[in-house]
Amino acid sequence: MDEARPLILIVNDDGYEAKGLEAMVSIAKPLGEVVVVVPDRTRSGMGHAITMGEPLRLTNYKNEDGIAYYKTNGTPVDCIKLGEKVVLRDRKIDLVLSGINHGSNSSVSLIYSGTMAAAIEAAFDNIPSVGLSLLDYSPNADFSAAVHYGRQIVEKVLKKGLPPHICLNVNFPKVPVEEIKGIRITRQCHATWHEDLQERTDPYGRKYYWLTGWLERLEEDENTCEGALQRNYVSVQPVQFDLTAHQYISTLKYLEL
Amino acid sequence: MDEARPLILIVNDDGYEAKGLEAMVSIAKPLGEVVVVVPDRTRSGMGHAITMGEPLRLTNYKNEDGIAYYKTNGTPVDCIKLGEKVVLRDRKIDLVLSGINHGSNSSVSLIYSGTMAAAIEAAFDNIPSVGLSLLDYSPNADFSAAVHYGRQIVEKVLKKGLPPHICLNVNFPKVPVEEIKGIRITRQCHATWHEDLQERTDPYGRKYYWLTGWLERLEEDENTCEGALQRNYVSVQPVQFDLTAHQYISTLKYLEL
Repeated sequence: MDEARPLILIVNDDGYEAKGLEAMVSIAKPLGEVVVVVPDRTRSGMGHAITMGEPLRLTNYKNEDGIAYYKTNGTPVDCIKLGEKVVLRDRKIDLVLSGINHGSNSSVSLIYSGTMAAAIEAAFDNIPSVGLSLLDYSPNADFSAAVHYGRQIVEKVLKKGLPPHICLNVNFPKVPVEEIKGIRITRQCHATWHEDLQERTDPYGRKYYWLTGWLERLEEDENTCEGALQRNYVSVQPVQFDLTAHQYISTLKYLEL
Repeated sequence: MDEARPLILIVNDDGYEAKGLEAMVSIAKPLGEVVVVVPDRTRSGMGHAITMGEPLRLTNYKNEDGIAYYKTNGTPVDCIKLGEKVVLRDRKIDLVLSGINHGSNSSVSLIYSGTMAAAIEAAFDNIPSVGLSLLDYSPNADFSAAVHYGRQIVEKVLKKGLPPHICLNVNFPKVPVEEIKGIRITRQCHATWHEDLQERTDPYGRKYYWLTGWLERLEEDENTCEGALQRNYVSVQPVQFDLTAHQYISTLKYLEL
């Protein structure tokens, strides 16, 4: 490996045809050797799902500008595992980039996010990783502001590293670059998702349901991801994967288990 | 609703035919009104995945001993959403029970777990919830010790409640009931999953991969989930869903973003 050329693995959850993937490649290309491993279709809302019951496929579908592109029937987290073990065969990866996602991964959306699960999976293996998401679900979203600020963040992470087993959840507001006020380090906003399961009837008389919903913010603090985004700041949340509610380890004594 | 009869929703990730589901029903049946909403097949390792790209189906496949059983093509987390919104139509749920899972959900396995994702989904909505898992992947696992200790834990939670937005990740060692030494409140063990992607060739000459792996404990502390389980204690981990690495919010200044 050329020591001056960091090895960068790009993954996403929107699949190999997503415009956000091109945007991410444009960030990474000048920074090192880039390899892309992404799902062969949209895999939004996959959380930390992995493929256990069926075999994984992997296809080298394109080689362009020195970048090898692979797609798989697996999930975003599977893309990390396949990237590390099969495509790069345990070579040292210097940086994992996930996205750029079409749509927000702030607040509790982070928990449902395949984009961020892939970044967290890389953090398990202590690879510096960054998930980038734009608050615009449109397939033709304008990624120019995200690329501008994303490049800045990614360059800093590549140069200065991240704390062990910590990754970044970066969200960009849906505004032109000149309206972005700057970058804020944030914490996860307390919010809740209100489900709406739309009931319909198929042509054979059987009911089915479409899962939709909306996010209710339960706080307006400007130091949260949602608070920063509302004020047109880029939100950078440091993310860890210890789900222990440490503050309740001693208080759970009241249960008298 | 009969005020003396708590409403209990049971979900799992092993599907409607799992022996662990029967075990969970045997815990819940004496405690209140029970409704079951589970996947129509095994959905292990689904993490917090939800079904966005295709419609959800829901079938009332059995009614027995006053318990209504539903199955769905959705994920474990979808089971919570369908249970709350469609089956129970916003009735107040007093307790969600997830499992009993065939296999461990301790340490980082918690992050991949559909069982625990469903419990966390209930915690989003501030419903007391408990995920139960037995360290035995066998379809014919012996759940008698898990039922014995699980009933004890579930009764206490139903009587005394849980802190807001906190759920419990309960894991049972794979030993007979008389060898279990007791119950410990634990924190998530620091461990890492080592992937092994087994490469094979199908009859048409195309490669495919089976995802397997093993967990390496990176600490042996008896106060962790893994430490307790190794010593034949039942592990009860309080779980929260704020993934912010709070300790790094100030230190990330070194990135100079």
